[in-house]
Amino acid sequence: MSVLIVGSTALDSIKTPKAENPRLLGGSASHAAVAASFFAPVRLVGVVGEDFPRRYVKLYQRHGIDLEGLQFAAGRTFHWSGEYEVDMNRRRTLATELGVFERFSPDLPAAYRDTPYVLLANIAPALQHHVLDQMRRPRFVMADTMDLWLNTALDDLLRLLKRIDCLVLNDSEARQLTGEDNVIVAARRIRRMGPRYVIVKKGEHGSLLCGPEGWFLCPAWPLEKLVDPTGAGDSFAGALMGTLAAGRGSPERALRRGMLYGAVVASFCCEGFGLKRTDRLTREEIDARFEQLRAMARV
Amino acid sequence: MSVLIVGSTALDSIKTPKAENPRLLGGSASHAAVAASFFAPVRLVGVVGEDFPRRYVKLYQRHGIDLEGLQFAAGRTFHWSGEYEVDMNRRRTLATELGVFERFSPDLPAAYRDTPYVLLANIAPALQHHVLDQMRRPRFVMADTMDLWLNTALDDLLRLLKRIDCLVLNDSEARQLTGEDNVIVAARRIRRMGPRYVIVKKGEHGSLLCGPEGWFLCPAWPLEKLVDPTGAGDSFAGALMGTLAAGRGSPERALRRGMLYGAVVASFCCEGFGLKRTDRLTREEIDARFEQLRAMARV
Repeated sequence: MSVLIVGSTALDSIKTPKAENPRLLGGSASHAAVAASFFAPVRLVGVVGEDFPRRYVKLYQRHGIDLEGLQFAAGRTFHWSGEYEVDMNRRRTLATELGVFERFSPDLPAAYRDTPYVLLANIAPALQHHVLDQMRRPRFVMADTMDLWLNTALDDLLRLLKRIDCLVLNDSEARQLTGEDNVIVAARRIRRMGPRYVIVKKGEHGSLLCGPEGWFLCPAWPLEKLVDPTGAGDSFAGALMGTLAAGRGSPERALRRGMLYGAVVASFCCEGFGLKRTDRLTREEIDARFEQLRAMARV
Repeated sequence: MSVLIVGSTALDSIKTPKAENPRLLGGSASHAAVAASFFAPVRLVGVVGEDFPRRYVKLYQRHGIDLEGLQFAAGRTFHWSGEYEVDMNRRRTLATELGVFERFSPDLPAAYRDTPYVLLANIAPALQHHVLDQMRRPRFVMADTMDLWLNTALDDLLRLLKRIDCLVLNDSEARQLTGEDNVIVAARRIRRMGPRYVIVKKGEHGSLLCGPEGWFLCPAWPLEKLVDPTGAGDSFAGALMGTLAAGRGSPERALRRGMLYGAVVASFCCEGFGLKRTDRLTREEIDARFEQLRAMARV
């Protein structure tokens, strides 16, 4: 089955202590879509401007991503520029030029409205609502978010929580959303706000799932060579949704496998700038690391 | 088989944002010994003063701990007093009164010298050496340490690394010992300094084992009620050594099970002040939580 992915499609200029890479393909939807494409057919909804390089369109196409929902608008592509510190867990935004993204309205092609799996990657909650308004009874909806929306669009986000099956967010966002320092308690509280499942991402410390069947504690790949963490969370969510769409078994079991696949693709993402490493990935590499990671967590 | 545990035996006065508890039974050896006692016979080596409450001797005895190696000296018992902040990961020491601990020499009773499993809980590396000098070919030696010894007794510690099978330390100590920010890389480097196995403790994020067979990623119990983390690391190490002494199977498999048992006993330890919760524990409670934690990590 297919996955619909809606989010930002951007150009990222990324500085780390070791290198500088201008105008890489980035954005939540780009990372999620490429990650999901290893597992299931992907439909992408986003917007790019006239400066969007042709080679990035080809990159999407190389991964078999359906681009009927990708809007080409007059103006410049959303451009984010950021810098990572020596401690790569800390980054600061140098510039955010919204460009055509400022007036983005995620209007779905008719063919997309029946997609069974929907990933609302990180965009404004109002746009996430707009996508759901156009869908016909999707089977599983997962939404990502960020601290910006907790600060500026909390009401929209709280309403969204009642319309989705799963919220994925990072630990600091879970704390901010609930005002609760303990992430375990925070995850339980978010479940009471609506979604059947809550996934808290903890970066190098893995992720955890809180659902009706209890907890799943998902490890992270022990990464020795962190090049650029940009897009790791989006890759995690994309791979997870891709495996669900391709999946078998109970939802709980599928989510566990999906999170482990998400951890694997996210780890590859961190091994290169932007989408460079993910773009070269093969399903064989993913499956091999999946089995290794599973073995590392086995008691 | 038996476990020999050498370390500090102390009185801890612990303040948290919610409560204050004076003169609890504490010290690295106390926590480790009680934790290990659920799995194997324990022999304790430490020193206490004339003020050491009789009820704490009874507590050790209630857990079947062999006290032939516990020295009763003239003077006052080692007294540590500390305060946890609202974020319970941060604590500061208010007072350290060494008392009889200042002249502690861990001289082993003759009957202890053949103990197959040895836990050198956190004490000065010179004392840890002194214990090993008295042992007759132990089967497995694990040592714990702390930042204090990295700052004040690094040479002794580096020599110790060549005499032990496993070093257990927390993530910040692993970074300090190697000057390497990435704990994965740091763990590998420490292995090259001597020990066959390195275990890095990451508190609420679990722990990881680096050994000849690769990595084991051990989860932490999802703890909702953190009362007092004092002694959690010592409980982890004690339970781990207890299960090894009681164990079967390959060393790698035994270490994995042992670390998961360690995570379980450490989580109970955090649910009460000092040893209060651990003291009331039953093997049935431990085994039940072990199976739950194992299921939470299963893919």
